[in-house]
Amino acid sequence: MRKVAIIGPGLLGGSAALALKEQECVRVALWARRPEAVDEARSLGIAHAVSGSLPEVVEAAEIVLLCVPVGAMEDLVRQMLPYLSPRALVTDVGSVKEPVVSCLAPLLADRALFVGSHPMAGSEKAGIRHAKADLFVGATCLVTPEEGALHRTDAAAEAVSRASRFWESLGGRVSVLAPAEHDRMCAMISHMPHLLAAVLVNAVEAASPEAFAFCGPGFRDTTRVAAGLPEMWREILCSNRKSVLDALEALGARLEQVRALLQDQGPAADDALLAFLAAAKARRDTLRTG
Amino acid sequence: MRKVAIIGPGLLGGSAALALKEQECVRVALWARRPEAVDEARSLGIAHAVSGSLPEVVEAAEIVLLCVPVGAMEDLVRQMLPYLSPRALVTDVGSVKEPVVSCLAPLLADRALFVGSHPMAGSEKAGIRHAKADLFVGATCLVTPEEGALHRTDAAAEAVSRASRFWESLGGRVSVLAPAEHDRMCAMISHMPHLLAAVLVNAVEAASPEAFAFCGPGFRDTTRVAAGLPEMWREILCSNRKSVLDALEALGARLEQVRALLQDQGPAADDALLAFLAAAKARRDTLRTG
Repeated sequence: MRKVAIIGPGLLGGSAALALKEQECVRVALWARRPEAVDEARSLGIAHAVSGSLPEVVEAAEIVLLCVPVGAMEDLVRQMLPYLSPRALVTDVGSVKEPVVSCLAPLLADRALFVGSHPMAGSEKAGIRHAKADLFVGATCLVTPEEGALHRTDAAAEAVSRASRFWESLGGRVSVLAPAEHDRMCAMISHMPHLLAAVLVNAVEAASPEAFAFCGPGFRDTTRVAAGLPEMWREILCSNRKSVLDALEALGARLEQVRALLQDQGPAADDALLAFLAAAKARRDTLRTG
Repeated sequence: MRKVAIIGPGLLGGSAALALKEQECVRVALWARRPEAVDEARSLGIAHAVSGSLPEVVEAAEIVLLCVPVGAMEDLVRQMLPYLSPRALVTDVGSVKEPVVSCLAPLLADRALFVGSHPMAGSEKAGIRHAKADLFVGATCLVTPEEGALHRTDAAAEAVSRASRFWESLGGRVSVLAPAEHDRMCAMISHMPHLLAAVLVNAVEAASPEAFAFCGPGFRDTTRVAAGLPEMWREILCSNRKSVLDALEALGARLEQVRALLQDQGPAADDALLAFLAAAKARRDTLRTG
């Protein structure tokens, strides 16, 4: 019987617990800080054991999965250090990787295996009551060893291999990349969509609040992610500040390009606008759906 | 038996035809310019009659629904004028209303009833083969009489009333507003989502094309509309140039606000960022889904 410890009873932690419970020979222990969260997870039958005691949950666990906000990870890892099995693999689900990895890797060096992870699953519907066993099926799961670590230590390679098998067992499609590269990419493909959605909703509210009554499916899809948890997104944006600012600059330059084309009004500008829209369509058409 | 003429065999025209065919005592005639489009609509059984002859299709029609690009409407209406029944109601499905109404209303004055319409339904999947009878069910359908017209003429009131009943018979939820107001609102809730989606896709392509392999559901939803027809969207953006430029300016100001908050890094700025995200979430949560 393998034990897996899930630290944090949110949508991702709850979904991982549900998926693991369906596996044979796995015992799932879930930690939650608040007594009400412990009670809720128990009543939902999310894990084999639910507890507010960190030592109890991590003890003898082969895998410890951190599913708490990025800013809460360091403190929790310090608390669990004395109780971790030396063969444990610690990984996380944080949306930003450079700050997490640079903080946790030295803490856990020689105490357990560690590698960062980011399963690109989730929903604007937060909370354990929205957890579902198939949340990670088909989802891209990024595993982020420190730059160059795979060449330096066997432990790093083992951590990547075990984390990859773990996510694959939950149905994920694993890719490996460096934390800084991860953060740069996610600023563009995850943090920008969120910011743009929030900007769009707030701009409509300021300019034409009556227009919300008329919104079609395009607006609803484009702004869906704006319903995500503000505290979580504030933390993501602030812990990935540099890359988010770079991405905002790149977007701003392109918005200005479109604005200038529209302002111009000449046939060459109209053609350039068409080319811009056609390039976006061609690229968007290549994305897998679902 | 009422005859309804659908001018243009695209997604909207095809879907209206399919929905009308399910009604009793309605005969649907569909016009398409290209012989291949006539053949396709015939083989799909979209309407009772499909023809490339405009006189044949509009003759004796109680309702004439223009489902062609905005820029093609004037010419078609001029061609159909001699064949229109004086009791016919002409309306359209154009995404921009001020240019359409100011062009068609004088052309049709004393020849038929006219009012602009904009059913906010559709899909990035264009073409008659994606037509479906329930496309307008639950969709907001905006009916746009000329500013002040309802007070000036009984004909305007009758046109609005008949167009409203028409869209309601297809399952739409009708609202009435002036063309200029429509265009200002749609720049924010429809044209901006499209532009932002295209800008985001093109910015990712330029900065991190490899990131497309890792896109999650958030990116896919936010950019879905970028897969729309470039020619159609170029026309929409250019025919609503003034309102689109105003909306771009409003969005740009809000993006700059977010950028400044992130750049600042102080706790007050972080709190303001949280408030910005929380306001967007609160507003987005009020939107009906589906």
